[in-house]
Amino acid sequence: MERKNRPLILISNDDGVNAKGIRELIETLRDVAELVVMAPDGPRSGAACAITSEYPVRPTLLVEEEGLKIYRCNGMPVDCVKLAMYMLGKRPDLVIGGINHGDNSSVNVHYSGTMGVVLEGCIKGIPSIGFSLCDHAADADFQPMLPFVRRIVVETLEKGLPRGVCLNVNAPSSKSYQGVRVCRQAKGDWSNEWECCQHPRGGEYYWLTGRYDTEEPQSEDTDYWALKHGFIAITPIQVDMTAYAVMDELNNWNLDI
Amino acid sequence: MERKNRPLILISNDDGVNAKGIRELIETLRDVAELVVMAPDGPRSGAACAITSEYPVRPTLLVEEEGLKIYRCNGMPVDCVKLAMYMLGKRPDLVIGGINHGDNSSVNVHYSGTMGVVLEGCIKGIPSIGFSLCDHAADADFQPMLPFVRRIVVETLEKGLPRGVCLNVNAPSSKSYQGVRVCRQAKGDWSNEWECCQHPRGGEYYWLTGRYDTEEPQSEDTDYWALKHGFIAITPIQVDMTAYAVMDELNNWNLDI
Repeated sequence: MERKNRPLILISNDDGVNAKGIRELIETLRDVAELVVMAPDGPRSGAACAITSEYPVRPTLLVEEEGLKIYRCNGMPVDCVKLAMYMLGKRPDLVIGGINHGDNSSVNVHYSGTMGVVLEGCIKGIPSIGFSLCDHAADADFQPMLPFVRRIVVETLEKGLPRGVCLNVNAPSSKSYQGVRVCRQAKGDWSNEWECCQHPRGGEYYWLTGRYDTEEPQSEDTDYWALKHGFIAITPIQVDMTAYAVMDELNNWNLDI
Repeated sequence: MERKNRPLILISNDDGVNAKGIRELIETLRDVAELVVMAPDGPRSGAACAITSEYPVRPTLLVEEEGLKIYRCNGMPVDCVKLAMYMLGKRPDLVIGGINHGDNSSVNVHYSGTMGVVLEGCIKGIPSIGFSLCDHAADADFQPMLPFVRRIVVETLEKGLPRGVCLNVNAPSSKSYQGVRVCRQAKGDWSNEWECCQHPRGGEYYWLTGRYDTEEPQSEDTDYWALKHGFIAITPIQVDMTAYAVMDELNNWNLDI
């Protein structure tokens, strides 16, 4: 693509600026667009849409090359997007979160710092995509999903997304894929969430852990099902969380004082 | 209510266990239900649905009285709900976040730690409500909204909520109210989000600040409008963030490799 017409993509994540996933994403997209990366200085897994209000945040420029700038930041993933948009002085054509080390499908969209990046881009009216690989390992193999990442990015740059809608893309850990499926968010929850340990000076402390299960393993239209069957799952996600279907019922409640 | 048939309500917040808002909520609901409070040991404003995976969390019992237990916890609001549910050994009848010091309406539902509490309760299948007063002050006057809080809690205990739906209740800072309105989440965003300062040893650091504006100030069905016109806004919120309306369009994209 000609230099001056190249799109601008803002990238962040929740695994930190040195994670393998974001580094491979950068390499994959360098010839597609001008890239600005603002990513946390360390792990922020499970940061959701958290923002930093109790202390100031500080960006540090790490890399400045033709078509690529990389900053690290001591804030949260959402802070990274907000701060980069402020410093850029122009609107990016796309915001990308990832590639995350670990599954952000189903209800995990709510806990994911990667999807925090994406929702923030979406709230600001920029087409936004989160990419996640269902493998937490630091040396996870992102290669098989990279052609799909590139295809989805190019297609999103061309087609755009409706205002208030972003994409949550999850890939199973696999050498090859059945293809791509457009899905809905599966219903489910975590159980056995705490590992209890004895504190050496008395009392107990707890590590967050647990197991995710869907309530609807047979539903073929969910992201859960797609991932279990070797597909890359694209779940469109919206900023508007209003439960429109229950508004009439609530209007019949007795809420007078 | 007779002792043994009293409902059980789990309470948390994002302003910390010592905030005025949670203390007034507890006093208001003591005769309605048995209360278990697990709240952060300090401010977690803007914690969203963040969870703590990098360090362990630890609860400390602060108060144990007839019908009331209060714990503080070093984790995030969502951790508080997860840990309390684990320690309780039985399911609460209701999960409540708040009363928050500050507005959680509109797009702020995504950043709010109070709504993190509520979404976690909702994911776990418990009817859940977030209460917020549009006043950030530590000594904000919660008295005028308390009768409405009580009414909404009693009605929710009686009627229940559909699975996957919770309530985001916001009250304007006011001596009196026009009443209660069932609303949808207003569209909007923050601008002028950063205050830049010079670091004494060189470089710049940034405080998150900003101003919220809606894109649709005239829409009378939004929480934004209700709050501006002296109503308490009840916005039903759903865990399922799927943008169903765009699934057909995405199925027409060229995503083959």
